[in-house]
Formats: sequence, structure tokens, C-alpha cells
Amino acid sequence: MISVGTMAAVLDWLGIITFAISGTVVASRKKMDVVGFVILGTVTGIGGGTLRDVLLGSVPVFWVREPLYLQACIAVSCLAFVLRKLPLGEYRLLLLLDAIGLALFAVTGAEKAMLMGAGPFVCVTMGVVTASFGGIMRDVLGNESPAVLSSEIYITAAAVGAGLYVLLAAIGIEREFALLGSILAGTTLRLVAISRGWSLPSAS
Amino acid sequence: MISVGTMAAVLDWLGIITFAISGTVVASRKKMDVVGFVILGTVTGIGGGTLRDVLLGSVPVFWVREPLYLQACIAVSCLAFVLRKLPLGEYRLLLLLDAIGLALFAVTGAEKAMLMGAGPFVCVTMGVVTASFGGIMRDVLGNESPAVLSSEIYITAAAVGAGLYVLLAAIGIEREFALLGSILAGTTLRLVAISRGWSLPSAS
Amino acid sequence: MISVGTMAAVLDWLGIITFAISGTVVASRKKMDVVGFVILGTVTGIGGGTLRDVLLGSVPVFWVREPLYLQACIAVSCLAFVLRKLPLGEYRLLLLLDAIGLALFAVTGAEKAMLMGAGPFVCVTMGVVTASFGGIMRDVLGNESPAVLSSEIYITAAAVGAGLYVLLAAIGIEREFALLGSILAGTTLRLVAISRGWSLPSAS
Repeated sequence: MISVGTMAAVLDWLGIITFAISGTVVASRKKMDVVGFVILGTVTGIGGGTLRDVLLGSVPVFWVREPLYLQACIAVSCLAFVLRKLPLGEYRLLLLLDAIGLALFAVTGAEKAMLMGAGPFVCVTMGVVTASFGGIMRDVLGNESPAVLSSEIYITAAAVGAGLYVLLAAIGIEREFALLGSILAGTTLRLVAISRGWSLPSAS
Repeated sequence: MISVGTMAAVLDWLGIITFAISGTVVASRKKMDVVGFVILGTVTGIGGGTLRDVLLGSVPVFWVREPLYLQACIAVSCLAFVLRKLPLGEYRLLLLLDAIGLALFAVTGAEKAMLMGAGPFVCVTMGVVTASFGGIMRDVLGNESPAVLSSEIYITAAAVGAGLYVLLAAIGIEREFALLGSILAGTTLRLVAISRGWSLPSAS
Repeated sequence: MISVGTMAAVLDWLGIITFAISGTVVASRKKMDVVGFVILGTVTGIGGGTLRDVLLGSVPVFWVREPLYLQACIAVSCLAFVLRKLPLGEYRLLLLLDAIGLALFAVTGAEKAMLMGAGPFVCVTMGVVTASFGGIMRDVLGNESPAVLSSEIYITAAAVGAGLYVLLAAIGIEREFALLGSILAGTTLRLVAISRGWSLPSAS
């Protein structure tokens, strides 16, 4: 059985690669050049974790300490540029990748804050910040309508994923199950909300 | 007589709550859901102080060290969502809250930089940064025309409040009076500038 | 012969002043008041280096430790406001100043990361971040179309300048020549790309 540290690291990598690809999907939609692919892929992949590290005071930020994250984002972005002709059904793919990355980062972001001794509110907030900031930067740089501001359940899904993880860890569930369960819950909630058009009641 | 530390803390709290409410006013104008209220309220309430702490290297940022700030912003935002039907004359209220929060944060931001030993230019700059960044984020996320870029006296009011405080502290005025006087001056300048349509001469 | 430390400091100053002036050119184009000049000039002049310092954990950021940078940006901005009637052929001037500042900051940003022991990928990335962030903030605040997103070679020029410097330093070229040569290369590439309309192949 793999350790929780290894699993959290693997999930973090998955989130970075997933978000990096989602950045290149936007770059492809906007017909950018290879530099645009690299910028959008890299900023989306490492943006959320960067803001998390800055707020927590965990500096230099993670990709300065471990450049492999940076190199992986650049490599994935270049590969995506080479393969850009593949018919990938772009917008649905973007939504799917974004949903997976959102839940992965929400949970690993909360986990990282928990490791630094933060309380439950701060952990959930760090999960939401980590999950949403890369996508916000992607949509702003790509001039897409920001997913985070959509009326669909987006931040809510990140908060549910992060909150469930904090809760499960607090009541003593094994970390491995807590990680996987809360990521699954967050992704599912986001995807169901998209397909069913779920939203929260608005002010009116 | 209360100590200057206590007074500065109270004023800081007032600024956070005031700006948080101003964030929910924008959320209400944009008919957002409760998550939108929480995001706008929280980002507006703690955004300026967060950037101030990051620039000064005072990390983890204040609301990670003291989550009560975060909890208060969330609670105020939820309460504002519940009470959103109250006829509050929204845009004028927004301007008023913004003016008060602007002056409060300009002065407490300068005070915090001063406590860390910064010189007068840096103190005034930190006051302006603290005062303006939350409102900038609020207006960007809410897609309002940013108050900070208006031709009215806005940043100027923050700079006057912060500058007056630095000046009064430097010439030995008691901190309590310096705090209250410069907040009053900043708020008044901003409100008078709005009502009279004052502006600075522009390039042409 | 001057030392490499002195030369790097001089080039850093040149970059700050150049970018500060480019900020005031945008402020002038937008017919802002003197506060708008100071904000755009200062944010553009110190924005890139500020983000670099935050990401590297070199806090308080450079202008808090050495307020002279801040004072110089404010002074240059005020002077630009006073002299705003001079016929300076604004848009072409903006492009020229931006090209010079871009290359200066790309190289000095990479140098600063190198001094902190970062590897080549991180150094080049820090060069690009330092070079581009001030201009991004300038264009966002001034509501100009961001130069960084243009199809012309922009980030590429910054990356080439920073990458060339990292390469030259790695193969043992004297720092003074490496600094000047890579700045010249970056500036030239950017200016030629503008005048010839060079761009990279795009996704299509």
C-alpha cells in the first residue's frame, strides 16, 4: 500500500498536468502560437499552488524549489501544441479536465494547509484558492468567460471537496480514503451540476 | 483610555467588515448566489491586507494566523445574503461604505508598515495598497467599473489619509488622535469629492 | 572596469525608469490625472520585480527595503505629468521603451534568480516574469490591449534574452559581456519583430 505522502504527491502531479492541458485547450481555441500554449499551460498548471504557497508563506514557491513541475508544464504545453490537430471535442474536454483538476487541487490544497497546521476554515479556503486561481488566470489570459463566475456550481464543488476532506480527516478516516473520496465527490458534483444545469438560488 | 494597539485593531476590524459589506452590495447588484456573496465579501474584506502582508513579507498572511477574520467575512457575507431584500439604496451605500473602508485601511495599513520599521514613502504606499486592492478585486470580480480608475479623487483620498497619519505620528501627535483624525480626513475628502464632483486636472 | 554587481544594479535602475516612463506614456494616452500617472508609472516600474521577489521569497520586496526605487518612480511620473505636452510620438515611443525595459528586466531578473541559486529553467522563468508583469499591469490598468498577448514576438524576446544570459553565464562568458550582449539581443529581437511583423506559427 502506498503512503499518503506519495499519494498526495501523485494527485498533486495529476492536478498540475490536468490543469496544464486545460490551459492548452484554451490556447488552442484562441489559435495561439506555441508561446501562448506554454504560457497558458504553465500558468494554469502552477498558478493555484503558487498563490497558495505565497499566502501560506511557503516560499520560494514550490516550482522554484522543484523545477520539475515547471519543466513538466512546459513539456506538456509543447506536446499539446504539436498534437493540436487532434479532434478532441474541445469545449467539453475543457470542462471535464477543469472539473477533475478543480477537485484534485481543492483537496491537495487543503491537505497542504493542514500539514502546516492551519485550522479547518483556512484549510478549506486554501483548497478553494488552489483550485480556482489557475483556472481564473487561464480564463483571464485567454479572454474566456471565467468559469469561476458562472452561475453553475463551481467554487461550491471545490469547497465541498476540500471541506469533505477536512471533515473526513478530522473524524479519523484514513488519509488515503479521505483523499480519494473527497476528490471523487468534488469532481462528481461539478460534472453533475454542469450536465443538469444545477445552480444555487441567486439574489433577486 | 484604550491603548493605541487596541484602537488600531478595532479600526482594522471595522475596515474589514465595512469592505466585506461593500463586496456583498456588489454581489447583490449582480444578483449573485450565496457563494458569490461569500467570495466578493471575503475577497474585498481581506484582499488589501493580504497584499500588504505579502509585500511586507509578513507571512503566513494575517487571516491564516488568525482565522477569525476569515470567519467574520464569511458570516457577514451570508448574513448579507439573507438580508438582501432590505431596501438599502444600493449604489449610494456602496460609495459610502467604500469611502469609510478606504480611509480605515489607508491609515491602518500605514500604521502596520510603520510598526515594521518602514520609512514614510513605504508607509504611505502600503496604506494606499491596503486601501485600494480589496476594492479593485471587488470591482473586477463583480465587473463594475473600478472605482480606483475613476476620475474622482479616490487613491488621492487614501494617500492623504495615510500621509496625514505618517505626518502626525512623525511630529509626535498621540497615536489615538492621529489615527482618528487621519481616518476622518480621508473619509471626508472622498465623500466631498464624490458629492462635489471634485477631480484633479488631467493630461489633455 | 566596473564590477558586475554595479553594472547589474545600473541596468536594473535603467529598466525601472524605462518601464516607469512607459507607464506614464499610457497614462498620457488615456488623459489621466497626476495620480493616474504616478500609479501607472510606479506599478509598471516596480511591478515585475515585486512579483519576482514574492515568488522567490525575497521579502520584504526590494522597494520596501530600498525606498529609493519607489521615490524614483514617483518622481519620474510627476515629471512626466509636467512635461506631458511635449510631442513625443507616443505609441512608437511606448513600443521602444517597452522593448528596452523588457530585455533589461528579462536579463536582470534571470541574474537575480541565479544569485539565489536557482536552476536554468527557473532563472529564465523569473526573467520572463520580471520582464512581463509590469507591462501586463500597465496595460490592464490603462485598458490597452496587452502587449504580452499580441501575436508579435514579445514573451519570446524576453525568454531569448534571459535564456541567452543563462547560457552565456553557464559557458563561462564574463558576466559584464553576458549582461550587455543578452540585453542587446532581446531588445533587437523585439524591435525587429515589431518592424517586420514577425510572429510565431499559430494553431489553426
